[in-house]
Amino acid sequence: MKYEEFKIEGKNAVIEAFRSGKTIDRVFILEGSHDGTTNTIIKEAKKCGAIVDFVKKERLDHMSETGKHQGVIAYAAAYEYSTVEEILDIARGKDEPPFIILLDSIQDPHNLGAIIRTANLAGAHGIIIPKRRAVGLTATVAKASAGAINYTPVAKVTNLADTIEKLKKEGLWFVCADMDGELMYDLNLTGPIGLVIGNEGEGVGRLIKEKCDFISKIPMYGNIDSLNASVAAGVLAYEIVRQRIKA
Amino acid sequence: MKYEEFKIEGKNAVIEAFRSGKTIDRVFILEGSHDGTTNTIIKEAKKCGAIVDFVKKERLDHMSETGKHQGVIAYAAAYEYSTVEEILDIARGKDEPPFIILLDSIQDPHNLGAIIRTANLAGAHGIIIPKRRAVGLTATVAKASAGAINYTPVAKVTNLADTIEKLKKEGLWFVCADMDGELMYDLNLTGPIGLVIGNEGEGVGRLIKEKCDFISKIPMYGNIDSLNASVAAGVLAYEIVRQRIKA
Repeated sequence: MKYEEFKIEGKNAVIEAFRSGKTIDRVFILEGSHDGTTNTIIKEAKKCGAIVDFVKKERLDHMSETGKHQGVIAYAAAYEYSTVEEILDIARGKDEPPFIILLDSIQDPHNLGAIIRTANLAGAHGIIIPKRRAVGLTATVAKASAGAINYTPVAKVTNLADTIEKLKKEGLWFVCADMDGELMYDLNLTGPIGLVIGNEGEGVGRLIKEKCDFISKIPMYGNIDSLNASVAAGVLAYEIVRQRIKA
Repeated sequence: MKYEEFKIEGKNAVIEAFRSGKTIDRVFILEGSHDGTTNTIIKEAKKCGAIVDFVKKERLDHMSETGKHQGVIAYAAAYEYSTVEEILDIARGKDEPPFIILLDSIQDPHNLGAIIRTANLAGAHGIIIPKRRAVGLTATVAKASAGAINYTPVAKVTNLADTIEKLKKEGLWFVCADMDGELMYDLNLTGPIGLVIGNEGEGVGRLIKEKCDFISKIPMYGNIDSLNASVAAGVLAYEIVRQRIKA
């Protein structure tokens, strides 16, 4: 996956970029701008966690490539997403049963980065994330992945439940983590598998959970509710690794 | 462990707080201050990752309790640290073989928080961190621990190597993670154990590594060097949990 950062200049171009779901890392706005369009851009930027900087006209002029920035320049990350088919091809190419990690709406870029890192080292063939209500491949994710983003493909899909159905037809079994599941050591997690990790606040969504073949419990002895999402993903991914080694 | 935030006012008091190793979360400094003492405070703040805010005199006057802030007010976190003896007492009280996680200079507060969370849920009796070159119990750590900081004791020691020697006399075995170790599944990790996790950049220090009885390897198949430190801690802590359940 290659990384390329590019500039988007002008109010409408930047609004359009936000609306199309492009990953905007940073927006530079002319100091003192208070018009409606600029306010909309600031609102959109806050929604997706993009950094907003108010700068002087000279700085925008200097950054501009088109000379027509209209007081707004955005920087977008251009990580190439992969496809589900490409992930399956990688598994086939290695002659291994597919091992895919599906993330049900992870919000924190540090968690997504750490999970891509784990996927790479645990030998997973790829990651699938949903288009909506989830962090995408931003510069922060790339940094937290410690370079793994360049090796482990990430596919973005419109509907995670549909994707699970399609992958079941390819022979994959699905396991998700939840408190009311069976102890992970007692499940057979070898073979072609999709590991579903829920988001930081609410865990795995009901619809997705119903699609899963197994619900797996990480043993917990403490006082609090749950592990950090990237730690839970690591513990489960490595239980799959252990079972594959011992199989 | 209870949390209490308190103010430190005045230049010398704040410098003294930094020098004594107190955990300062945030420093408010009078706009336009450029004297030597203030510069020293700014430098110390950067060293320990405290946030520095430059504010107007009115704001400092409003925050001040003593009326003598001299242009500097710091906020310190007052989490109570535990002691190694208290951690051992908890294990004794539960009639369990001690399970302690030792962190060789973790720098990132999100990692420390996630590890406290893991320690709580994996049934570890406490965490030991070094006084120097490591993040302490800051507000960010508390937040990332998802409340676990209130249940799982954290002891701060001057010399981690000495602490390992003392705990060996209490019957603990020590295991650290490194690439050149034995596969973790092949080691016997039951019984009284200290799990040593290295820092984000360099792993476990040479001196500490030499003190360990076992070096344990997490199997890795990917292209990059290492897991995120809190994920590695989670995977290893749960291998200990698995072996204790199966024992």
